[in-house]
Amino acid sequence: MPQPDLELAASLFDALGRATRRGRGIVRDSYGAGEQAAHDIVRSAATSLGLEVAVDAIGNLSMTLPGRERDAPRIIIGSHLDSVPQGGNFDGAAGVVAGLSVLSAMHRAGQVPRCDLTVMGIRGEESAWFDVAYIGSAGAFGLLDPASLAIARSDNGRSLEASLRQQGFDPQPIRERRALLDPAQIRAYLELHIEQGPTLVGRGLPAAVVSGIRGCKRFRNARCTGEYGHSGAVERPYRRDAVAATVAFLHHMEGVWLAQLETGADLVLTAGELYTDPAMHGPSKIAGETRFVLDLRSLSAATMEAVAGEARAAAARIGADYRVHIDLGATSDSPAAVMDRRLRSALMGLLAVPFEMASGAGHDAAIFCQVGVPSAMIFVRNERGSHNPDEGMALDDFAVGTQALLALLLEFPL
Amino acid sequence: MPQPDLELAASLFDALGRATRRGRGIVRDSYGAGEQAAHDIVRSAATSLGLEVAVDAIGNLSMTLPGRERDAPRIIIGSHLDSVPQGGNFDGAAGVVAGLSVLSAMHRAGQVPRCDLTVMGIRGEESAWFDVAYIGSAGAFGLLDPASLAIARSDNGRSLEASLRQQGFDPQPIRERRALLDPAQIRAYLELHIEQGPTLVGRGLPAAVVSGIRGCKRFRNARCTGEYGHSGAVERPYRRDAVAATVAFLHHMEGVWLAQLETGADLVLTAGELYTDPAMHGPSKIAGETRFVLDLRSLSAATMEAVAGEARAAAARIGADYRVHIDLGATSDSPAAVMDRRLRSALMGLLAVPFEMASGAGHDAAIFCQVGVPSAMIFVRNERGSHNPDEGMALDDFAVGTQALLALLLEFPL
Repeated sequence: MPQPDLELAASLFDALGRATRRGRGIVRDSYGAGEQAAHDIVRSAATSLGLEVAVDAIGNLSMTLPGRERDAPRIIIGSHLDSVPQGGNFDGAAGVVAGLSVLSAMHRAGQVPRCDLTVMGIRGEESAWFDVAYIGSAGAFGLLDPASLAIARSDNGRSLEASLRQQGFDPQPIRERRALLDPAQIRAYLELHIEQGPTLVGRGLPAAVVSGIRGCKRFRNARCTGEYGHSGAVERPYRRDAVAATVAFLHHMEGVWLAQLETGADLVLTAGELYTDPAMHGPSKIAGETRFVLDLRSLSAATMEAVAGEARAAAARIGADYRVHIDLGATSDSPAAVMDRRLRSALMGLLAVPFEMASGAGHDAAIFCQVGVPSAMIFVRNERGSHNPDEGMALDDFAVGTQALLALLLEFPL
Repeated sequence: MPQPDLELAASLFDALGRATRRGRGIVRDSYGAGEQAAHDIVRSAATSLGLEVAVDAIGNLSMTLPGRERDAPRIIIGSHLDSVPQGGNFDGAAGVVAGLSVLSAMHRAGQVPRCDLTVMGIRGEESAWFDVAYIGSAGAFGLLDPASLAIARSDNGRSLEASLRQQGFDPQPIRERRALLDPAQIRAYLELHIEQGPTLVGRGLPAAVVSGIRGCKRFRNARCTGEYGHSGAVERPYRRDAVAATVAFLHHMEGVWLAQLETGADLVLTAGELYTDPAMHGPSKIAGETRFVLDLRSLSAATMEAVAGEARAAAARIGADYRVHIDLGATSDSPAAVMDRRLRSALMGLLAVPFEMASGAGHDAAIFCQVGVPSAMIFVRNERGSHNPDEGMALDDFAVGTQALLALLLEFPL
């Protein structure tokens, strides 16, 4: 049984870290010098392995181990090579490195796959500088809003279009919503990624199968309007206390969350911003206004819809109780992406301790899933979360996830 | 039975409003031109009534109807003549105008009281420009911290000392903590004031007897520290969500408040400031920190102590439950001032619908109470709260409160 090429993986992580560390953290700016440096490193490794290398019009890198049936739909193993500003070395890169470790192992073992196996270094998934995610994957399927080309890069003001051109790429397919990849020609999309939360650390497991990428239903501009008053002089029955009402509402929603979890539903619920108005509030005033965000995420659209409905009903009921107006406003929604059942099941059979969990953060796999490509993801245990310089993935855990990826390819179930 | 001189009251309110309105609101700046204009108006009225007029070293104005026993301890009917910036016409002034209406009535009816009756126009109670309350009353009893003299006026930067001098007054008694009034020479202090909350409007009553002025125990710098995280990627058991914990804590404290009210305790409880950190929070982040204020007010020190103790215990317990640290910090305390039992009882007997309520805001009566002068207050119904241009006191309601004051003086119970 071939083993992933961990020596290659270690040297790639090392090279990527050395080339793109700026101070404490990693900077692989999307369609900038940092991302390009990462592309150059993995491309050079792919060439050394004898893989076929290609770059599409918008900069996505394909590194292919040819299969026996070259016209058959291929399998893509991918992830992104950009990072957030001052990010960590593993978020994104781990998936590309895992792919190359696997292809290197198959190549060394003389395995010729049935179909082409392509490792894809995807552009601009984080895209923190442009405030539009999935540039590379959505762009490759003709799904990116052409208006995105005008977005100015947050640090230097250069538009996405100009940034693409400066790197030698062509914005035209994005402008025309022209697909560079045909979903029908992709048998499966596989992505290994570090876990971005603490679940695997908490459970003492090296890796997990991802059940899906949670959708999000977010009340971005919720607002509670009551009436300012003297904290000493207004008795309880006469108050229209926006903080008290908001507290009662959010506490109720925590109860709704707990009840959902007890039924086995997948849900996370967060109020990450909550504030009284600093221009109006005071230590001896009853607050007349709060603003907050309520963020619901689930693999199930029905769960999000039910909880959002309960939130609206509770806002009306509790608002009336407290004689305030709780206006949750409109939601901004992104759909869930449930991973392919057969691939998940096959991956579960390849883990010593099978464990399946939802991804709360987005990944390129969501885009492949959206266009109908059977998709699967493996999470690798990671200390201290992602999007920070202190990401901590052990190579031993990476090996467990990558071994499962390799085994899946060797006995591909589709 | 004499009736208060409402014609005088109406003309004084009119003159005060005309002299000190600046735009929409009233501006009677403490130890400034606005307050002085108000003093000049009431002083002139007092002189016309034939009252004895005197001004003490720090500017408090005394207008006295001589009694039969001039050496006996006198009765003071007082309130302040300053306002907050853009305040209303009645907060403070109503108490001085009520006193003059009563003395005018007694004078016209040929009533000579047993002891001297002095209407006192007190300086700088609001003192919004100097950020130290009760300048006139605390200063008159030698209780004002001499360090207050250095406080700079918020708009023009002039110190309290310089402001006193500019108005022709003498800061020396404050500097020496020298009392200008002897509590033993004051038989009682009576203050009529507009209610600063909506209770009398809500109950449909023109006036109330004040049971006391609530003390305050305030957690001014409470803070909950958890851990920032991805709102989608961190499952509930691994969260250290500062907002969720703060919500649970404040919701618990609302329950504590309700339980106290059910036992008949006097208490108001307010979190008037509550906020996540705008530099760190985000719509898809679990909040790692909140800051808030918890303000407890009661007539009973024991109630405030018990509720503060429960707050500390709940902070520890809920902090542990949510794996965060809720640090309530120190409290800033001001004592309650319970009004004189006999005077309250006498006033209750003078209202057609007897009703007693606590004052949540501070008044000069708290200072007279503190030095041992038997004190009482009457609240008059007022629409739309105080400290704003839209204060709404009907002259009919003022008449009810002032009539009770006059009746009290005619049959004084001490």
